[in-house]
This record gives sequence, C-alpha cells and structure tokens, in this order.
Amino acid sequence: MTTATRREEMIALMQTGQERLCAAFAAMDGQTTFQSKTWERPGGGGGTARVLSEGAVFERAGVNVSAVHGDVVPPSVSNERPSTRGQPYFATGISMVLHTRNPYAPAFHANFRYFEAGDEYWFGGGMDMTPSYGFADDARHFHRTLKALCDRHAIVDYAQLKTTCDKYFYLKHRSEMRGVGGIFFDNLQPEGVAGFEQGLAFQADGIRAIEEAYLPIVARRKDMPYGEHERQWQLYRRGRYVEFNLVYDRGTLFGLQTSGNIEAILMSLPPLVRWEFDYHPEPGSPEAATLSMLQPYDWAGSA
Amino acid sequence: MTTATRREEMIALMQTGQERLCAAFAAMDGQTTFQSKTWERPGGGGGTARVLSEGAVFERAGVNVSAVHGDVVPPSVSNERPSTRGQPYFATGISMVLHTRNPYAPAFHANFRYFEAGDEYWFGGGMDMTPSYGFADDARHFHRTLKALCDRHAIVDYAQLKTTCDKYFYLKHRSEMRGVGGIFFDNLQPEGVAGFEQGLAFQADGIRAIEEAYLPIVARRKDMPYGEHERQWQLYRRGRYVEFNLVYDRGTLFGLQTSGNIEAILMSLPPLVRWEFDYHPEPGSPEAATLSMLQPYDWAGSA
Repeated sequence: MTTATRREEMIALMQTGQERLCAAFAAMDGQTTFQSKTWERPGGGGGTARVLSEGAVFERAGVNVSAVHGDVVPPSVSNERPSTRGQPYFATGISMVLHTRNPYAPAFHANFRYFEAGDEYWFGGGMDMTPSYGFADDARHFHRTLKALCDRHAIVDYAQLKTTCDKYFYLKHRSEMRGVGGIFFDNLQPEGVAGFEQGLAFQADGIRAIEEAYLPIVARRKDMPYGEHERQWQLYRRGRYVEFNLVYDRGTLFGLQTSGNIEAILMSLPPLVRWEFDYHPEPGSPEAATLSMLQPYDWAGSA
Repeated sequence: MTTATRREEMIALMQTGQERLCAAFAAMDGQTTFQSKTWERPGGGGGTARVLSEGAVFERAGVNVSAVHGDVVPPSVSNERPSTRGQPYFATGISMVLHTRNPYAPAFHANFRYFEAGDEYWFGGGMDMTPSYGFADDARHFHRTLKALCDRHAIVDYAQLKTTCDKYFYLKHRSEMRGVGGIFFDNLQPEGVAGFEQGLAFQADGIRAIEEAYLPIVARRKDMPYGEHERQWQLYRRGRYVEFNLVYDRGTLFGLQTSGNIEAILMSLPPLVRWEFDYHPEPGSPEAATLSMLQPYDWAGSA
C-alpha cells in the first residue's frame, strides 16, 4: 500500500467517524445540532471543528478532525523518535470532548490519531470518562466495553492501555485522577506487512466503540432529577478538567506552543466552571464517594 | 543589619500589609469578611491564606502571606543565579487576587516578595489590573498612581517596570494581553549599605499604594447597573485569567511543581468562569472596545 493510499484511508476514517458520531450525539441530545467550522493551517493542511452548544443533554460537545503536514517533524516528535529528525511528516486525527448538562451524566473524551514521518508510521489514541457523580455500574460498562474492544485486536493489551490511561490522566498537584480512566495508547506501531491494516482496523473499531461505551451511560443518567447542590458540585469538578488540560495535557500544550487553531484546541474546556477555596465534601456524601472512585481500579474485572 | 533582623522586618511588613489590606477590602465589600487558614510547609515555614467569598462587591478576594525557608535553593532560583546554588534560602511574600462581582469593576492582582540565598538578597513584585470592560479613566488613574509610586524611589524606573509587566502578562496563544498592565519587577537588588533599606522602603510603599491605585476604581464601578449580557462577558473574560495563570504564570507553575499549598496557590482562579467556542464580540461594541485596550499603552502619560 502506498503512503498516499494510507493517508487517504486514515483521513476518510476520521471524517466518516466525525460524521457518524456527530449524528449520534445530536440524536442523543434531541434538541440541538452541530455547527461546523473549517480552518486552515498556514504550514499545511487544516481541519473541521464541529460544536454543539447549549443542548438539552450536552452543554457542549465538540468533535474535531484535522489533517496536517509539514516539511520538518516538530521537535516534540523527533525528540522521542530521533530517526525522524528533519523528515517531512503527516498527521491526522479525530478528537472529541463532551460536557453533559446533568451532573449525574459523565463527561467524555476520546481521540484517535495517525502519524507518519520519514518511513515510519504509528497510531495513538484512547478514550476516558470523567463523572461528577461516580456510578460503579457506569465505570464497569465503560471498561468492559473497552476491554472487549481491545480483546478483538491482537496488537493491543487492555490492561496495558488501561494502566497508561490511569497514569496519564493524573493531576499531580492534587494527587487525584481526572476520572475513572479508560484506555490510552501512543506509539502503537504494529510490525510486518499487515501492520498498517491491523492498526487501521483497531482505530476504526475504537472510533466505532465510542457510541457503545459512552452513550448508554448518558441515556440512563441524562434525565435523573438533580438540584442546585449537584449542579454546583459538577461545576466545581469541571475545574479539575480545566486544570488538567491547561497544566498537563500534551495535546493542548503542544497546540498552544505551536499556534494551532486555538479555538479548536480549547474546545475541550467546559462551558461553565467554578473554583472554590479549600472545599471538601462531607464525609460519607455522594460527592466524597465519587472522589473515592477516582483511583486506579479494575472495573472490567469487578463484580 | 543582621540577616535575622532583615527577615523579621520583611515578615512584619507582609503581615501588617495583609492585616491592613484585608480590612480595607472588607470595608469596601461592606457585607462579607475574610476567613483565615494557616498552613505549614513540610520543608520549613508556612503561611496564612485569607479569603473573602461571595461578597457584595468581591465575588472572591484572597490575600496570602507566606514565609518559607529551606536547606537548598530550588533549581528555578539557582538556575537564574548560579552563585546561590546549594545555599540555604529564605523567602517571604504577600500575594493577592480580587475578582469583582460587577463586570464594570476590574479584577486586580498584586504580589511583593523578598528572597535571601547565601549572602544575597533581592526583591520582586508588582501589581496589574484586568478589566472586563475597559475605562480609560481607570487605566489612567491606575498607571499614574503606579508612576507616582515609582517616582518616589530612585532604585526603580516606572517605564521599565511597566514594560516588564506588559511583556509578562501576555497570552502568547491568544496574542493578547491579560489586562491593562501595571508594574512588575524581579531581581531588584539595590546596592550599597543602604540597599536593603531602599528595597524595604519601596516594598512598603508599594503595598501601601494598592489601596490608592485600585480601590477608588472599585468604588466608582461597583454599583453600575449591568445585565446578563455584561455578566456573561465577564465570565468569558475570566477564562483568559485561568488560561494565563495555569499556562504561563511562573508563581503558579512553581507552586504546582513543588507541591506548595495548592488551595493557596489556586486561590487566584476566579469563582465562576465560562468558555465559549469561537466567540467574537460585535465590532464597535463595548466588548470589542475593551479588547482594543488590551495592548501596551502609555496610560500614565495619556490625556
């Protein structure tokens, strides 16, 4: 398969994924649809940001697709892969963040990406879930779906991808996980002549699994009654989301440093956020119980 | 003057400053007072965070004082001052952030600090103002007060401290200043036998000038009528404050990296914040006019 064919296949995968997911999210919302904004990158390539704002179910949902290329691999890549230094590169990906309105429905993040530099190509991606109010049933459903996804593909190991996720979505300054985890992988480089097809198949299956992993959870939480107390806790917990994305998230920081499309990059930030000084939920409260869920745990294997 | 005496004088300056400023801010608020929380640093020293929450005028006001010491200068300091490497150090400072409720009243930040390492000591600090709605009169009053402050002290130059401030409070990823600036200085090390006294006098005068520089502006804006549109714009602009503090602010990042007191460090974040995708105020609107004020300008010299 030629490089051009590989790129076309990956771009098509991202674009059809965006199309299908936006339709599914809008259907779940039932009230609001996605607005679309395309942008071009001065150095080469561009993308389309699709955003649903102020929906009935999703306070904000954003799904980005981009495909960019350049003459010289950026340092953040070549430092990790010295063999690519000075080479031209190509990258395409889909990323999405959904912030729900109902505090009982979790926020969700996923991204899948493909990178080429010189003669090498590799895959990255993952998805994770961030509840304001944790439900063991939700965490179990989410992780079991992800384990089944990984089990369908010999090139990945669920336990390993889950551990990588737990380590990545961690707020060091709070000694706190961002959510109940998920899977995360980088530098996935399947070997052999079928390597690309295996990687592509996993990416395609992963993007497809988003609906199964996340939407049933939204469906059963989106209409749960809640009050001002629960809303305020949700806004407070969103502060952790902002802290993680602006202080630690590699994709966000890379985007800020390389003057990518700022609005598309910061689309991940929640629509409304609250910070409170020295707040601690009451021991034994549902809020305290949620905090106790924010640690590495074998949800897929739990009863 | 002995080292011990210098330290005592600087700590006393910070503590009396905190006392006086909290009283002045609470009087301006008229409804709510400050809560106090002391904390200890495992490595040596500690501090007192004083916070006013949900006041009539100040949605949040926080004034921190700390005095810490350690056996070995942290790398962030010794990298800039190789002569201090491996030396014991001492640092004390006062820092404050005020977020107003009325969108027409600007947010305010100030900090003053003193550092000792080995045989060296130096001063740092500054103050700056961040309006949601810019008023030229306010920017003029603020900068003229700061220029008068600097003009009273031969060891500093207003124009230089203003330029440093304009460069520091800059969101590179937005190509946007955080506010209308102010003064900012680091590594102020007055020479000669009277060096310490000159530095101390400037710090004391600077802390005293906060009330004169900022509070008259709050007084004339705090009761201006406003509607939901103005409130939403204020919450949106606060997003820039969060982006700056979490992505660029040296003090915040230093605190997060060295596991300082997290709640005291992040007290600077606004109580309620909003992000919106790809928002641009209408040309000619008061919001657009404010954005046009967020660039380096000689407010002190303007008519």
